[in-house]
Amino acid sequence: MQETDWIQRYIAPLVTAAGADGLRDDVALLSTGAPTIVTMDTLVEGIHFLATDPDDTVGQKLIRVNVSDIFAKGAVPQDALLSIAWPKGRSETRFASVFQGLARDLEAYQIALIGGDLVATDGPLTLTLTLTGQCLNAAPVRRSGGRPGQRLLISGEIGWGGLGLQAARLGETSPAAQRYRVPEIASESTARTVARVAAASMDVSDGLLIDVKRLAEASGCGAALALEHVPLAQPTDHAEGLLNQCTSGDDYCVLIAVEGEQIVPGFVEIGTLTQIPGLQLTLRGQRVNPPSTLGFEH
Amino acid sequence: MQETDWIQRYIAPLVTAAGADGLRDDVALLSTGAPTIVTMDTLVEGIHFLATDPDDTVGQKLIRVNVSDIFAKGAVPQDALLSIAWPKGRSETRFASVFQGLARDLEAYQIALIGGDLVATDGPLTLTLTLTGQCLNAAPVRRSGGRPGQRLLISGEIGWGGLGLQAARLGETSPAAQRYRVPEIASESTARTVARVAAASMDVSDGLLIDVKRLAEASGCGAALALEHVPLAQPTDHAEGLLNQCTSGDDYCVLIAVEGEQIVPGFVEIGTLTQIPGLQLTLRGQRVNPPSTLGFEH
Repeated sequence: MQETDWIQRYIAPLVTAAGADGLRDDVALLSTGAPTIVTMDTLVEGIHFLATDPDDTVGQKLIRVNVSDIFAKGAVPQDALLSIAWPKGRSETRFASVFQGLARDLEAYQIALIGGDLVATDGPLTLTLTLTGQCLNAAPVRRSGGRPGQRLLISGEIGWGGLGLQAARLGETSPAAQRYRVPEIASESTARTVARVAAASMDVSDGLLIDVKRLAEASGCGAALALEHVPLAQPTDHAEGLLNQCTSGDDYCVLIAVEGEQIVPGFVEIGTLTQIPGLQLTLRGQRVNPPSTLGFEH
Repeated sequence: MQETDWIQRYIAPLVTAAGADGLRDDVALLSTGAPTIVTMDTLVEGIHFLATDPDDTVGQKLIRVNVSDIFAKGAVPQDALLSIAWPKGRSETRFASVFQGLARDLEAYQIALIGGDLVATDGPLTLTLTLTGQCLNAAPVRRSGGRPGQRLLISGEIGWGGLGLQAARLGETSPAAQRYRVPEIASESTARTVARVAAASMDVSDGLLIDVKRLAEASGCGAALALEHVPLAQPTDHAEGLLNQCTSGDDYCVLIAVEGEQIVPGFVEIGTLTQIPGLQLTLRGQRVNPPSTLGFEH
């Protein structure tokens, strides 16, 4: 790996923001205007994506898992810094392919790549993105803004991540496998809705049940979910299949808590925040015991 | 590794800034006031530090290589995001030790840790820090602000990184080995000097010669260095030993270009920017050919 060459050939063409000074400097100037939030997510080969996944999908996944966090806070993505620890001896062709995916989604989400780091590693490919976002309101919509009695709503379908992982492990190119590799995430219009109506918000990335519990706890509440209302990748009436999908993670929907009875376009009501702590699950009015594992703990 | 437990036990206590919302959210709010710059550096075990280095020094090194970039731009460090890819099965005791080092230098440099990511890896320990800085002027002091005729000045001594690497490889606890593990970097007072007097500035981390060349090229100039004026870790009259130290990297001094004849406290004059492109080296008036490798290329 010739780091200087690769930076010039693949990274520099993606770096067009004035604040980056053409990557000729050690630091970049952040665009700040509205209140600025920031998130950082790391993907490790063999943990967060499969060694057999096409390289361009890895670049897209890195962007999307970070953008999902920004949209869920009622903000739009702005500047990114990218760190890549590239396995020694892995080819330039594969590096170029990762950057095809990155370029595609930097463009799609109008993100300015302003800096980062490129290093060699004896281990697995490890990518870290730091992404800033401009809040549409004066502040980000927190996990902690929920209150008892507010409705819980979700955008998108739950269960694609888990189904997709199974399919991707088999090397499939099915829609499910593709959704594991390149998650379908919320859009800027979702972010605008979140900023307009949500008292609390987060992206559901580790499993619906664990993330509902997290939002409720951060808000000092409990939560009651009516499982029959959860939009599923594989619709089912059976509690087991339903709970599997609700704990499998990698879905990148947005979960919000909303005051009052207004209709929220693009979102489906799945439950309410409660005064009683803990997670209460029902399926068509019948109590369902929460499974021992609510999702991906980290 | 129980990520949630480790985050609560080691990371959360370091997170006190309001913008971090107690790590209960997916994003952090950046402190922005003065123009905000940002840098990101990654350290990989076996590449940027030795597997035998004490864990607390790894935490300190991560902070310092990033702080050095901020100080060199005439700015002071502000907010940090930390990503750790931790080797599966490595002990909690060692994790705690990395955090002792991190805590020490977050405190020393008054940095607010506001977020990040913790993941498992099958590979080497890989740490990435994203660090913002508040500019003391209206903008960062760039590499590209130099002009022919300006003097080149340096803070600190050159060669400790290279000497220290050799010593650290032997497992020494000598001052040189210690300086490889925990680099001595510029201080906030250096940053204030940079902001006040420098037309161009950068930290010297890859070797003095290559970094002088980079600053000169970014400024559209060449550079002439009088090697006998370079402050060395091991002072010598021999060109070979001198050039070795000037190309070894990991020194984290600050290199600036200054207009006019003013005395700059804490800095030593080592040469000038020239209209003629390229790097001209002299030793007590005699021409010296630049070595084929000017430093660490990346």
